[in-house]
Amino acid sequence: MNPDLAWAVWSGERQRRIEGVLERALPPDTAPPLALHRAMRYAVLGGGKRVRPLLAYAAGELAGAAPDVVDAAAAAVELIHAYSLVHDDLPCMDDDSLRRGKPTCHVAFGEATALLAGDTLQALAFETLARGALRDVGAAVAVLAAAAGAEGMAGGQAIDLDAVGASLDLPALETMHRMKTGALIRAAVSLGAACGAPLAAGEQQALQAYAAAAGLAFQVVDDVLDVEGSATTLGKTAGKDAARGKPTFVSLLGLAAAKERAESLRVEAHAALAGFGGRGRRLAELADWIVLRRH
Amino acid sequence: MNPDLAWAVWSGERQRRIEGVLERALPPDTAPPLALHRAMRYAVLGGGKRVRPLLAYAAGELAGAAPDVVDAAAAAVELIHAYSLVHDDLPCMDDDSLRRGKPTCHVAFGEATALLAGDTLQALAFETLARGALRDVGAAVAVLAAAAGAEGMAGGQAIDLDAVGASLDLPALETMHRMKTGALIRAAVSLGAACGAPLAAGEQQALQAYAAAAGLAFQVVDDVLDVEGSATTLGKTAGKDAARGKPTFVSLLGLAAAKERAESLRVEAHAALAGFGGRGRRLAELADWIVLRRH
Repeated sequence: MNPDLAWAVWSGERQRRIEGVLERALPPDTAPPLALHRAMRYAVLGGGKRVRPLLAYAAGELAGAAPDVVDAAAAAVELIHAYSLVHDDLPCMDDDSLRRGKPTCHVAFGEATALLAGDTLQALAFETLARGALRDVGAAVAVLAAAAGAEGMAGGQAIDLDAVGASLDLPALETMHRMKTGALIRAAVSLGAACGAPLAAGEQQALQAYAAAAGLAFQVVDDVLDVEGSATTLGKTAGKDAARGKPTFVSLLGLAAAKERAESLRVEAHAALAGFGGRGRRLAELADWIVLRRH
Repeated sequence: MNPDLAWAVWSGERQRRIEGVLERALPPDTAPPLALHRAMRYAVLGGGKRVRPLLAYAAGELAGAAPDVVDAAAAAVELIHAYSLVHDDLPCMDDDSLRRGKPTCHVAFGEATALLAGDTLQALAFETLARGALRDVGAAVAVLAAAAGAEGMAGGQAIDLDAVGASLDLPALETMHRMKTGALIRAAVSLGAACGAPLAAGEQQALQAYAAAAGLAFQVVDDVLDVEGSATTLGKTAGKDAARGKPTFVSLLGLAAAKERAESLRVEAHAALAGFGGRGRRLAELADWIVLRRH
């Protein structure tokens, strides 16, 4: 099979798979409290690129884990991601009205229900991970919680809020993004790998180097697309970061240099996988996909 | 030692103990992101009755667990409770300005930081529990997550929001409170007990019966104090439920019958402990404290 087609088949299969896993993990929209359950499902199902679950499945495959063993970890990282989007979109945060081509959760369900939907999706992430088939559930929960919390994703969001109208330099911007989006992407890779056979310390370091590069590349490309894309292709409001005076890789580096940075991070991600040979194939393809995507 | 004095010593020791455990679990207020860390500490430290940690320590003691083995579970339930208060007080929820005698978190730190503080306290709860010394961390995380999530505390809050101005009957009100406050209280008892020697199935059922009665009693007494108390003794806005047209045990039963209900739940909690003999002493005293408290 030609490599592009093989990748399309693999990623399409995993995207359909995680949709089913998430669907079964979520509470039914026929049981009370109805509005809350519906808001949870609305925020999670039927949208999103599922980058984090794909990273978990690919890292699991590298470590020899079958998809069904990775399901819980893949769903858990996506549930954390989904909760963070619901809360980030709230009026007191980014105040966004469009997400994945649909009205944001609080526009559709009201602020109080959206707040609770985010809260319950976070709890569901930990419940799903805890009920999974990982060797060391305690370590896995600690990894996910640290990635989601004050030293990870939510801490990065706090720095991001403080940075509106401020002049972050490039190292500060990178630190913020390594927390805000990078921490959960690194967790997706390490939790996926933890579903398989134990890796040597050097292999774990290589995987983390891959995840760090891929995670930062993801954010650089997001900033590029925010300038180049439209709401139609992005499914969310375009140009919003610039309009808010938020520092971005494009505002600090310029558009051409930001694209070069994304490309060099893609090369860095590939290099980190060199020692894995064919086992790193899906992760390498994922790095390509992250950098070359149009939305 | 006279029983009242022994109880005062035991509960005072545990309250000081959990303050130290929480203090060490929280991020320092000297490291960035500063506002987020300060808001987290503000929401957790220096206030609160610590009912849930006391229940965890008492249940642990019943199962033969030393306090240091219970610390993680006790802190985790209190962190979940603290996060829920921060989010419940937000303008889009109960819109409260006073909590534990201080301005609420969003009044002190702004809405965005308070939202993130709640989010990060929830993550910290699971991280703390996962790093604890429990025999089966996966089961413990699943119990806490289910108690906090859509089928527990946050689901109860969703029903509560829907109930403003509506006419819940007594069974519906009890169902709501068994979720909103009862689920986390039951989790505190079962997680504390899980820190000790395994209990027989009948003993676990007895503990859950105790926790269900004590949890409901806690809420009935809250409703009574909301009518009888003042902001000075309560440390929070008094009379707010009635002012909002929220159904309460007092509005449904009348003040005298609500007090009788609390007393009968206290008796029910004691009865559930009968089979434990002296091992149930602290839990019995806790039920007394819950029902006889003045704030």
